[in-house]
Amino acid sequence: MPVSEIVYARRVQFPETDASGIVHFTNFFKYVEEAEHALWRKAGVSINQRHRDVGWPRVAASFEFKRPLRFEDEFEVHLKVAEKTRKTLRYSAVLRKDGEVMAAGSLTIICVTRRPGEPLKAIDMPRDLADLFEAAGEQRPPAGT
Amino acid sequence: MPVSEIVYARRVQFPETDASGIVHFTNFFKYVEEAEHALWRKAGVSINQRHRDVGWPRVAASFEFKRPLRFEDEFEVHLKVAEKTRKTLRYSAVLRKDGEVMAAGSLTIICVTRRPGEPLKAIDMPRDLADLFEAAGEQRPPAGT
Amino acid sequence: MPVSEIVYARRVQFPETDASGIVHFTNFFKYVEEAEHALWRKAGVSINQRHRDVGWPRVAASFEFKRPLRFEDEFEVHLKVAEKTRKTLRYSAVLRKDGEVMAAGSLTIICVTRRPGEPLKAIDMPRDLADLFEAAGEQRPPAGT
Amino acid sequence: MPVSEIVYARRVQFPETDASGIVHFTNFFKYVEEAEHALWRKAGVSINQRHRDVGWPRVAASFEFKRPLRFEDEFEVHLKVAEKTRKTLRYSAVLRKDGEVMAAGSLTIICVTRRPGEPLKAIDMPRDLADLFEAAGEQRPPAGT
Repeated sequence: MPVSEIVYARRVQFPETDASGIVHFTNFFKYVEEAEHALWRKAGVSINQRHRDVGWPRVAASFEFKRPLRFEDEFEVHLKVAEKTRKTLRYSAVLRKDGEVMAAGSLTIICVTRRPGEPLKAIDMPRDLADLFEAAGEQRPPAGT
Repeated sequence: MPVSEIVYARRVQFPETDASGIVHFTNFFKYVEEAEHALWRKAGVSINQRHRDVGWPRVAASFEFKRPLRFEDEFEVHLKVAEKTRKTLRYSAVLRKDGEVMAAGSLTIICVTRRPGEPLKAIDMPRDLADLFEAAGEQRPPAGT
Repeated sequence: MPVSEIVYARRVQFPETDASGIVHFTNFFKYVEEAEHALWRKAGVSINQRHRDVGWPRVAASFEFKRPLRFEDEFEVHLKVAEKTRKTLRYSAVLRKDGEVMAAGSLTIICVTRRPGEPLKAIDMPRDLADLFEAAGEQRPPAGT
Repeated sequence: MPVSEIVYARRVQFPETDASGIVHFTNFFKYVEEAEHALWRKAGVSINQRHRDVGWPRVAASFEFKRPLRFEDEFEVHLKVAEKTRKTLRYSAVLRKDGEVMAAGSLTIICVTRRPGEPLKAIDMPRDLADLFEAAGEQRPPAGT
């Protein structure tokens, strides 16, 4: 049965903070990618198919940051497959701490062949991988957050 | 005289790559932030005013990735102040290698007070800092790239 | 009751790998620090006592790398307090995957006061924190590994 | 002519700091590696010989930290080839800011073959690469620093 979403729990680690005392914003993108890889494992595979010449570079990423995270904060990434095309997957992500929305973002990946010495080339997703995922539609943080 | 833009040259370092052989996408955001901090130094100040209770958290960040960067690639971040409001600055950024557009993105920061033990609170930029920057308008990578 | 050791389980995340296909060596130090912070939480406190002017900079760190870790590998950090002095704690760490030793290292931290605008200054550990830990002696990976 | 040493200049970037306000210790190892890669470029090659099945995993790394680095600090990595064997290179590194020793460390790398699907295997350095480097002996920070 195809998967559409996952809730991924995480704790802030120290090197993820910066001298302003809060989590450096680039780590929010890492958190989403960790959740994505957990979603693929939930679907039964690794996103890194080492034995195949298929890869998943990111074509777009965006985030809106509402509230800061701090060292040792525990939070959740609510990740959904928002859209699926023949070549791409777009995830939406909402980060919550104690239920409160900390940040919300989006990540789009594209299926490519990667052959040594050749440039990456976009291809249709192999059927066995495409069948693992199903779009769940958008998720919107409640108004006012 | 206020500043509006900077070209920041950089070389890809090894830990910025990942097991797919290319730069991990989160580093594109780090490159833009490095360029931003170089822009502030060009304006004569550090973005980190340690003696003042003013900070600049990021409220939004987005990127479109066109072509991958690899270990030891030399590239440039073309950073512009795209928009300035009383509380925020929005930068646009285009990454180029040998003239070719590799990625293009946007970063919005907001001025806050940061007092120990209190939540961050958005404020109007202090006049001396606001006067350092002038919006240069949008930059758009040429069509087709 | 004072704590002496912890076993910290972890999975390799993608940005921790590099273009050679294995975990970048600097992340082994991060894994040990994560285990250290888990040990402090096990002792009932955060290592980051925000309300006090006490900090724990690292004075020495070393690692021997035996075998590479790869994306999604699951491993354990076996962390012990190897030595305790009035001002310092030294941890020894062994990383194991499926029982096999992947790497072994050491980390020494020192207690300092950190007052804004002043240089860090080594001090005797506050009694309440010193009492949380007890040295467990050295751990040595079995010969031949 | 073989190379033995390099002085590599660097500025601290913001994500390299942590919530204690100073550079996270793992970045000192990254700085040394950046200097190493600059040394290889000075010798006329990239350490990442993509067209060959040769790699250079790290077998040991250690550092003693004397003084903290902070955001935007400018410093130098003084890197020397301290020892050369048939299979390994050991570098010594001293980090200085305004002449003052901030940290001193050591990094040992080993030459391996890396063939897809096979474990890494230590080999004698290819002659053309071995000839690029010459040991310069140890460097010791002056006593008292």
